[in-house]
Amino acid sequence: MSAHREPDDTRRGQIVPIGGAEEKLRDPAILRRFVDLCGGRSARILVLPTASQLPHTGRRYAELLTELGAGEVRALAVDSREEADAGDASVGEATGVFLTGGNQLRLSTTIGGTALASALRSANAAGTHIAGTSAGAAFLCEHMIAFGRSGSIPRADMVTLAPGLGLTNAVIIDQHFRQRDRLGRLLTALAYNPFHVGLGLDEDAAAFIGPDDRFSVLGSGAIAVVDPSRLSHSSMSSAKRRQAVCLIGLQLHILTEGATFDLRSRIAEPPAAGESPRAAAGGA
Amino acid sequence: MSAHREPDDTRRGQIVPIGGAEEKLRDPAILRRFVDLCGGRSARILVLPTASQLPHTGRRYAELLTELGAGEVRALAVDSREEADAGDASVGEATGVFLTGGNQLRLSTTIGGTALASALRSANAAGTHIAGTSAGAAFLCEHMIAFGRSGSIPRADMVTLAPGLGLTNAVIIDQHFRQRDRLGRLLTALAYNPFHVGLGLDEDAAAFIGPDDRFSVLGSGAIAVVDPSRLSHSSMSSAKRRQAVCLIGLQLHILTEGATFDLRSRIAEPPAAGESPRAAAGGA
Repeated sequence: MSAHREPDDTRRGQIVPIGGAEEKLRDPAILRRFVDLCGGRSARILVLPTASQLPHTGRRYAELLTELGAGEVRALAVDSREEADAGDASVGEATGVFLTGGNQLRLSTTIGGTALASALRSANAAGTHIAGTSAGAAFLCEHMIAFGRSGSIPRADMVTLAPGLGLTNAVIIDQHFRQRDRLGRLLTALAYNPFHVGLGLDEDAAAFIGPDDRFSVLGSGAIAVVDPSRLSHSSMSSAKRRQAVCLIGLQLHILTEGATFDLRSRIAEPPAAGESPRAAAGGA
Repeated sequence: MSAHREPDDTRRGQIVPIGGAEEKLRDPAILRRFVDLCGGRSARILVLPTASQLPHTGRRYAELLTELGAGEVRALAVDSREEADAGDASVGEATGVFLTGGNQLRLSTTIGGTALASALRSANAAGTHIAGTSAGAAFLCEHMIAFGRSGSIPRADMVTLAPGLGLTNAVIIDQHFRQRDRLGRLLTALAYNPFHVGLGLDEDAAAFIGPDDRFSVLGSGAIAVVDPSRLSHSSMSSAKRRQAVCLIGLQLHILTEGATFDLRSRIAEPPAAGESPRAAAGGA
């Protein structure tokens, strides 16, 4: 039930959507920050490769996270609703969970409504950090972009939303944002009900969303933040299919590494001058 | 935020989706029950005709509810986001709110993210009963069917979901169900994430959903309840657009007046033998 409740998420783990294709070799800042966040050598991280059809995806991420210093990493093979219904006791003990890319409808159709989905929600509420890249990012929120068409102009019927994992209902997430020309479909999704903040995540860009609903940006890509709260006009309810939708009064911010955004007050802050958000060690 | 929380909705007002075209003249059982629920002569009911483009819709429902004995009824004209942002102090004092039919995207685009939406959610959480007919019914839940195609077979891309008012996230509602041949689009919506219970409401059929997430059926129409919790196979994530989706293991109940359903245990009960769910007074 999502009936009205006051935010009481002080213990909640971070929610970390990543726009896909995060850097894995030269300077894997996003994955390294996630490992550190989960406790570094004390981290117990589960990799959930359900979105992917490729057998090696889970193993590859497990190796990457281990190389970055995570104490314990395990790939959890869940390919059927039966397996997802069996749940996994290790979810409750993980300090972090990482959802790989692939197809977000494979995640929602396999996990949705099962014991595993419930365990993931409970774990995040109790402090487990949950990251997802590409399809894994889309799945994190309550209203998930399942698929849609490319293009920068919003058009009625351009995007299909589906219920996601529901860790947050403050944002709607799109990924591979600039690379796949997805501004139009994100604006369409927001125009249906201008309640959410839209996050358009480029590749190699991540939002680390804290329990206070503030997030910071990390990675070489940018995040387009669309805030429709001051929308004064929308033609969505009268637009015909494929017709361009007129929207007046959207706020747009392009946030780069180190910038922050508060999803409650809707206030963006630029990166602090002279401060590198990356770990001081190494790097050029 | 819809992060994991235990149900604590003991004070919540009832949520009453109606499938549209409810009987208004001969034996208006649904509207009468709603008036009684809201306190009869002590009722203070707000009619919200935002979904409708017709100027007399609000006035007509206000007259109907007054004739059925409601103490105080007022139609609240909200046609722009500016008006919705101004909110209305009377929402917090209403014992009931009635959302008329029309276009559910007009509701979500006009009210979504405004002070009025927030006031409606708070009021329902504090005990105000909220009913909606047709478009008004679709808007009540978190995941709203915005539009779609007719037909009884689910097909990928057959339905467009949008964020609704979010009074409940236990159900996805469709209306004019049998009359407009909508089984396929409801099944498609459920197949995206088999987390919800689907309610297909015929015309002149209503579900009175209590704070314990049990509902009873009223009206001459029926409610098709689709429970996907035991779904063992779904082809949704691999289906091409317009292709039929294979779903194995859905539970289906057709509930008529007096039948009940528990959205938590997912158990349906038939009407009690010999008991009329309508008020004893009058009626043939």
